[in-house]
Amino acid sequence: MKVWLNGHVLDEHEARIDPRDRGFLLGDGLFETMLARKGRIAFLDAHIVRLAAGGNILGIPMPFSPQHLSVACTMLLEANKLSNSARVALRLTLTRGPGPRGLLPPENPTPTLMISAAISPTPPLSQTAMLATPRRNALSPSSRLKALPYLDNLLAREEAHARGADDALMLDTSGHLACSSVGNIFLWEGERLVTPAEECGILPGITRGAVIALAEQQGIEITQDFIDVGRLHACDGAFLTNSLVGLMPLTRIDGRELGAMRLTARLQAAYDMLLDADEGEAEDEA
Amino acid sequence: MKVWLNGHVLDEHEARIDPRDRGFLLGDGLFETMLARKGRIAFLDAHIVRLAAGGNILGIPMPFSPQHLSVACTMLLEANKLSNSARVALRLTLTRGPGPRGLLPPENPTPTLMISAAISPTPPLSQTAMLATPRRNALSPSSRLKALPYLDNLLAREEAHARGADDALMLDTSGHLACSSVGNIFLWEGERLVTPAEECGILPGITRGAVIALAEQQGIEITQDFIDVGRLHACDGAFLTNSLVGLMPLTRIDGRELGAMRLTARLQAAYDMLLDADEGEAEDEA
Repeated sequence: MKVWLNGHVLDEHEARIDPRDRGFLLGDGLFETMLARKGRIAFLDAHIVRLAAGGNILGIPMPFSPQHLSVACTMLLEANKLSNSARVALRLTLTRGPGPRGLLPPENPTPTLMISAAISPTPPLSQTAMLATPRRNALSPSSRLKALPYLDNLLAREEAHARGADDALMLDTSGHLACSSVGNIFLWEGERLVTPAEECGILPGITRGAVIALAEQQGIEITQDFIDVGRLHACDGAFLTNSLVGLMPLTRIDGRELGAMRLTARLQAAYDMLLDADEGEAEDEA
Repeated sequence: MKVWLNGHVLDEHEARIDPRDRGFLLGDGLFETMLARKGRIAFLDAHIVRLAAGGNILGIPMPFSPQHLSVACTMLLEANKLSNSARVALRLTLTRGPGPRGLLPPENPTPTLMISAAISPTPPLSQTAMLATPRRNALSPSSRLKALPYLDNLLAREEAHARGADDALMLDTSGHLACSSVGNIFLWEGERLVTPAEECGILPGITRGAVIALAEQQGIEITQDFIDVGRLHACDGAFLTNSLVGLMPLTRIDGRELGAMRLTARLQAAYDMLLDADEGEAEDEA
């Protein structure tokens, strides 16, 4: 597989990350994961905007324009012969680049920007989830960024796997529901939806934002709220969202069977239409 | 400068971190920072033991024996002509190595182990500190590991710098004092010492451990405790500890002048003797 690294398409066995890269040494960077279907990248603009906004907060300048990155993604798909693949995961990784020893960043960083591509398997029809031990740090600014440090999420996911669930749910440090190890979560309470508020140490996902807008369009009452564990365990149904799986229905949380599958399926269908429309628009522009 | 990477001494401009390295992509790894004085590495064994113990918790096997790593550190100092330098910072970085896309680690990881060296400037005689916004996540297992994700610490440090202090103090998510951005903290209350308990989301530093043992030896009453902000702002004096600075007296916290400098200086002198003794022992073994 080839990667795009700071303007060059390279074989991944030849591409070189500098051993002084602060992404490698300190987790000092950000990333985005996007879904490309037959060469069309869902919500590409929104992902690039979010990456640049996060970089702005961290003081990591974007070394390439959105237009340049958009072309780079297309080039990389072509170089990997993935332009006609049904599902490709594209990852943008932005780090502060190499720096001298120590915590403080160089005054004039030379950021690293990498794009990688991989076939993204068709997601399962549904998953199970369980509450894991690691918490999301609602009292850290980086919890609201798609920052490189994913070790807590990894530990949560491994704990869930070890106990037979597909994904891990994480509470925030105040005990409110935050997210899964790789996505946002929505709960059905009757025919109303609730999803953790941004204050709960969540990354406000792009799919999450699209689903909130869709629900409102469809007249579904939806709130962003502080959700305690009792409320999680009383919900009628639930689903996860992220850029690769879209809406992922949960059939069980902590072993308890969930329902509301029809409600989730209806929203899922609407989301799939939105994806098609987003890509159709991109095609019209092209 | 040269680095030691997976068994080879390489120029840092030639050494290559794989773009699929999970340390780079996810912060999936650990590190240690050690002080070498004229080729003698303080507490080398303790650092290697901690690195291996952390790897064990994360499921990252140590790809080299402690003996091998010890020799590698010495080789690297020699290759960089740093064997006679007064102060060199050595950093061991252990990651899970390259992996396929996604959060879950490969079943049989090929870890990356890198050692880098840099001249470590003589630390200032004292520093100032202030409380910063980002919190340590006491509810995450990784907060007690010297894990690669340091973005929160970086944000805290930058906030402190922007407001004119040398270092940032961090509370844990329950509001108890935890540590500074790069070290542990000790407070003087009269002639008694108190330092945050391990439950406060701290990395139990090797220098911290040495100082606790030293204080006990010297008949200083020392407790590991939950310390709220009021108690921090009422202390008589304070110092930070880490492997590079040893004991760093704080002259101000949040602008308030601190005392107890004589008490800190006495402990500092004892610590310096301990370092010399530790190195003398290593010399006897050699």
